[in-house]
Amino acid sequence: MYRTHTCGELRLTDVPNEVTLAGWVQTIRKFGSITFIDLRDRYGITQLLLGEELNKKLDDQPLGREFVLQASGTVQERSNKNPQLSTGDIEIRVKDFTILNRSAVPPFTIQDDTDGGDDLRMKYRYLDLRRNAVKRNLELRYAVNRAARNYLHEKGFMDLETPFLIRSTPEGARDFVVPSRMNPGQFYALPQSPQTFKQLLMVSGYDRYYQIVKCFRDEDLRADRQPEFTQIDCEMCFVEQEDILRMFEGMIKAIFKDVKGIDYTEPVERMSWEEAMWNYGNDKPDIRFDMKLTNLKSPLKKEGVQRATGELIGGAGFGVFDNAETVVAIAVPGASEYTRKQTDEITDWVKRPQIGMQGLVTIKCNADGSFKSSVDKFYGPEKLQAIAASCEAKPGDLILILAGREERTRKAISELRLEMGERLGMRKKDEFRLLWVLDFPLFEWAEEEGQPGRWVARHHPFTSPKPSDIDTMISNSPQVANQEEYLQHPYAGIKANAYDMVLNGNEIGGGSIRIFQRDLQEKMFDALGMSREEARHKFGFLLGAFEYGAPPHGGIAFGFDRLCAILGGSESIRDFIAFPKNNSGRDVMLDAPSTIDAHQFSELQIKLDLK
Amino acid sequence: MYRTHTCGELRLTDVPNEVTLAGWVQTIRKFGSITFIDLRDRYGITQLLLGEELNKKLDDQPLGREFVLQASGTVQERSNKNPQLSTGDIEIRVKDFTILNRSAVPPFTIQDDTDGGDDLRMKYRYLDLRRNAVKRNLELRYAVNRAARNYLHEKGFMDLETPFLIRSTPEGARDFVVPSRMNPGQFYALPQSPQTFKQLLMVSGYDRYYQIVKCFRDEDLRADRQPEFTQIDCEMCFVEQEDILRMFEGMIKAIFKDVKGIDYTEPVERMSWEEAMWNYGNDKPDIRFDMKLTNLKSPLKKEGVQRATGELIGGAGFGVFDNAETVVAIAVPGASEYTRKQTDEITDWVKRPQIGMQGLVTIKCNADGSFKSSVDKFYGPEKLQAIAASCEAKPGDLILILAGREERTRKAISELRLEMGERLGMRKKDEFRLLWVLDFPLFEWAEEEGQPGRWVARHHPFTSPKPSDIDTMISNSPQVANQEEYLQHPYAGIKANAYDMVLNGNEIGGGSIRIFQRDLQEKMFDALGMSREEARHKFGFLLGAFEYGAPPHGGIAFGFDRLCAILGGSESIRDFIAFPKNNSGRDVMLDAPSTIDAHQFSELQIKLDLK
Repeated sequence: MYRTHTCGELRLTDVPNEVTLAGWVQTIRKFGSITFIDLRDRYGITQLLLGEELNKKLDDQPLGREFVLQASGTVQERSNKNPQLSTGDIEIRVKDFTILNRSAVPPFTIQDDTDGGDDLRMKYRYLDLRRNAVKRNLELRYAVNRAARNYLHEKGFMDLETPFLIRSTPEGARDFVVPSRMNPGQFYALPQSPQTFKQLLMVSGYDRYYQIVKCFRDEDLRADRQPEFTQIDCEMCFVEQEDILRMFEGMIKAIFKDVKGIDYTEPVERMSWEEAMWNYGNDKPDIRFDMKLTNLKSPLKKEGVQRATGELIGGAGFGVFDNAETVVAIAVPGASEYTRKQTDEITDWVKRPQIGMQGLVTIKCNADGSFKSSVDKFYGPEKLQAIAASCEAKPGDLILILAGREERTRKAISELRLEMGERLGMRKKDEFRLLWVLDFPLFEWAEEEGQPGRWVARHHPFTSPKPSDIDTMISNSPQVANQEEYLQHPYAGIKANAYDMVLNGNEIGGGSIRIFQRDLQEKMFDALGMSREEARHKFGFLLGAFEYGAPPHGGIAFGFDRLCAILGGSESIRDFIAFPKNNSGRDVMLDAPSTIDAHQFSELQIKLDLK
Repeated sequence: MYRTHTCGELRLTDVPNEVTLAGWVQTIRKFGSITFIDLRDRYGITQLLLGEELNKKLDDQPLGREFVLQASGTVQERSNKNPQLSTGDIEIRVKDFTILNRSAVPPFTIQDDTDGGDDLRMKYRYLDLRRNAVKRNLELRYAVNRAARNYLHEKGFMDLETPFLIRSTPEGARDFVVPSRMNPGQFYALPQSPQTFKQLLMVSGYDRYYQIVKCFRDEDLRADRQPEFTQIDCEMCFVEQEDILRMFEGMIKAIFKDVKGIDYTEPVERMSWEEAMWNYGNDKPDIRFDMKLTNLKSPLKKEGVQRATGELIGGAGFGVFDNAETVVAIAVPGASEYTRKQTDEITDWVKRPQIGMQGLVTIKCNADGSFKSSVDKFYGPEKLQAIAASCEAKPGDLILILAGREERTRKAISELRLEMGERLGMRKKDEFRLLWVLDFPLFEWAEEEGQPGRWVARHHPFTSPKPSDIDTMISNSPQVANQEEYLQHPYAGIKANAYDMVLNGNEIGGGSIRIFQRDLQEKMFDALGMSREEARHKFGFLLGAFEYGAPPHGGIAFGFDRLCAILGGSESIRDFIAFPKNNSGRDVMLDAPSTIDAHQFSELQIKLDLK
């Protein structure tokens, strides 16, 4: 027994008990002949008071920051209370102490605002993890884990473990592979997700499955991606989309309640993919603020009709608009008095290579009802007023307009909207807005240089079309006669029985009702250009399972790291992972990956083939 | 909504409600114009009654076993109740049904006693998983998971995830490795356990850590080993051995209570390693029954003294005993009337290559107080009586004696004891006896052919010696002058601060108090023959961490698969894993591992080097 209490536990009611604490020396302060030490552990900080009588021992065994100390003494009331600390009413009048371990001077300070750079902190991650800021993140992560498990348990879900050493199916992202020593020349793959296993568990009748599980993707790491990441992975039998939506908005609300103390009582909003693209320019809109797009000109259809014809802005001789495929606008509230410098700065922002626009058109809707635009040459006051009306801009607003190719322009206006929301303080960290995005297209048209275009699954090849679209899928050939007009093909209109959950502009989860009919699954592989043989080779076990009474089923997977980061008010998932990897996939603390020795190569019967 | 209730839910109180069920057709029975169907899901079985009016539909859409069926109708009381089923008081008078999916005839019957062989069941594991026997195992596994988490949560442990893509440290078992595409020529390793990470988390001050986590070992698979397996992995700060023992016997008792409804109120027995070897011949004794060994002759010491000198059996001219290093006996209760055939059969059993003994000596302690032995030629009645007394044999017992080299003989008598316990029904499946085995030697002496002997860590290189042995370890060189007499070296007597938890003769968990002093850890690596440079190369991050205030800490890991198997009354862990691998490390359902394609080799910059 190294301690009777933790450093976060003692209160006035413990006065005048004899106690023993153990922890790390956070600070040492000497006042005359008296020494104060803040002793820290996971649970808190307790002040130790060492009187004159311990000075000789302190001289003989000098203490330093991060030393591991055991101290015994009496709990007493503090004369100078610290309301910031839960233990701030008391201190320990130390009778004796033992240095359990010494510490070298840490390479950075163990404080919320540390002086350590990113690389240094990652190398000494075990010290970085001592900082309160990081510890709070991991505590939150555990709280989310616990809340999710409790909810799912209550709803009858079973945690069932699926294997990590599986079969490589080069489909979608790249697999990490593992050479098998016992089966020379053969490799396992690490799972990108337990997708097929959870479907098999449904075929086996387990009804409600979940797992909080590591997944692996060997992708080039964009900022804030990790080669190994964690999912809350769930699947249910005998369900339709509505059952899943209700079950899992329930889970997220339970997490809000348990982890953040937030009663999210309002219903979760729902939006079709088409609506999201039309109004926000992307499929995971941040609905904490409005500032919807106005489609002045666009090939995008809404409810099957091409509504944004460009009539309002056309014929004015302004080539930029006349030649653009797409012209979209947002009305930024209360920004009409931006200076030239400010609008120039926004123009520079949209011209950055990450956004990639050629320029920006602005219309100031002055408070007096007049307009001042960067295109006054082409558009008179009446025209400007009409455009403003179409953008639902109010006096005092600043209209920002982008023009160009559909895809890039829509993405750019979406980014600009988020940026302006950010600048205007409309994206509050402590406000949480959930959204279901529904009715995604089942297929996307993918074109690779020099290759004919082809259909790819927007979600994954196991996602079911909407029941009403199954016939369209079965009865049409996936063949596209004229590549340019793939949008005319019946497959372009097929909607998926899929759903994404969006929180504050981030996709935190996504899933679908699955195909459970063998013929439909084969048609899907067919549509994706996979031969029967290839499909059998890669997914034979799943197709086999579909022959023996597969039930209707569906599920969802949440990005656990991301969910934790958003709940913790952070942009970076790395801050919520105990031992993350850097952007080259390296663990700089371990110095991994690393070379392996000749004996290992020989046993695995592989060798390097470096270019 | 495919159903209003599950197939395990309806009771008499639900009569006469309208309900809809969905599930699998377990059986179809026709009585005249009426059809009975047992509909099955995860929760149970409900009887459906289809009257004459549905016969036409049944003819048009014939049903078969394992078809997925949705049926609506009225709950009614059964005339012929089935007390075996929780739903046995009711049935559904079906108004209409829908076939949700058809099923081919399964390759084996979905019943407790299936006609499917092991290979077939593994290939169609998704069908095997439908069987009640397997489902109960996985339900038990989830219950153990849940009970462990709840207990650990209550005790302040945090589930903290450690990485799966780590650094290869060829030490102990073989690593699985993963080539890194982003770092060509370098490899990650999959963790054999999160050992060093949990220690780092203690250095980081997380105080109480746990994880239910997959671990990986690339070993030649003996029966009932898996290349991936699951541990309940735990670590604590500021603890001594006693704190750990109490905490984790508490966990196992909580699991007994939650999962099996067993109140394990008696204290958990404790035994030193020496005692276990002396009395039971192995370090994980099954203490559900007694039948302790009698050491008639053995080089083994007990409390530092060589007690089994062979005096009692020596000098009788019986060469087998005189020439043996070790002579050990057990007294099998009530077996004195075994026939010649029976004792011959036991003799054959100990001569099997797995046991490897040359023969067996028997002494029958007859009920009338006389003795009859297989060595009457050498030992008269008085001598036999003295031997029987030393074995604490009672009239009616059968004494079995083995002789030979110490290690093999002790192992053999230990196996024989278990075998006799089994035959006599003393190893009851529903009786659970826990045991702590303590005070292991820190080092073992390992000899490989053609190599000088060397010290290896019995537990692992992070295990601390007993506090009283630290000085012996620090102040002596590990050098052994005379290989034959390694037992005379001070290191042979050093005891580890380690503990194993044993349940019914199986090691279910093991752990230790760790070294937390850098100098002692370096001395340990030194003792194991690891150069400073090698140690720094492999474990530099851990040695580094020990410089910055590492606290005293210790932990334990439980073999989760094994624990579940024992609680489920099974010998085989495979029955408690949803998707296990076979003895060649193959998943026969997935057909993994498998070849990978040329593109994958090229990206990973490796190639095959098959012998």
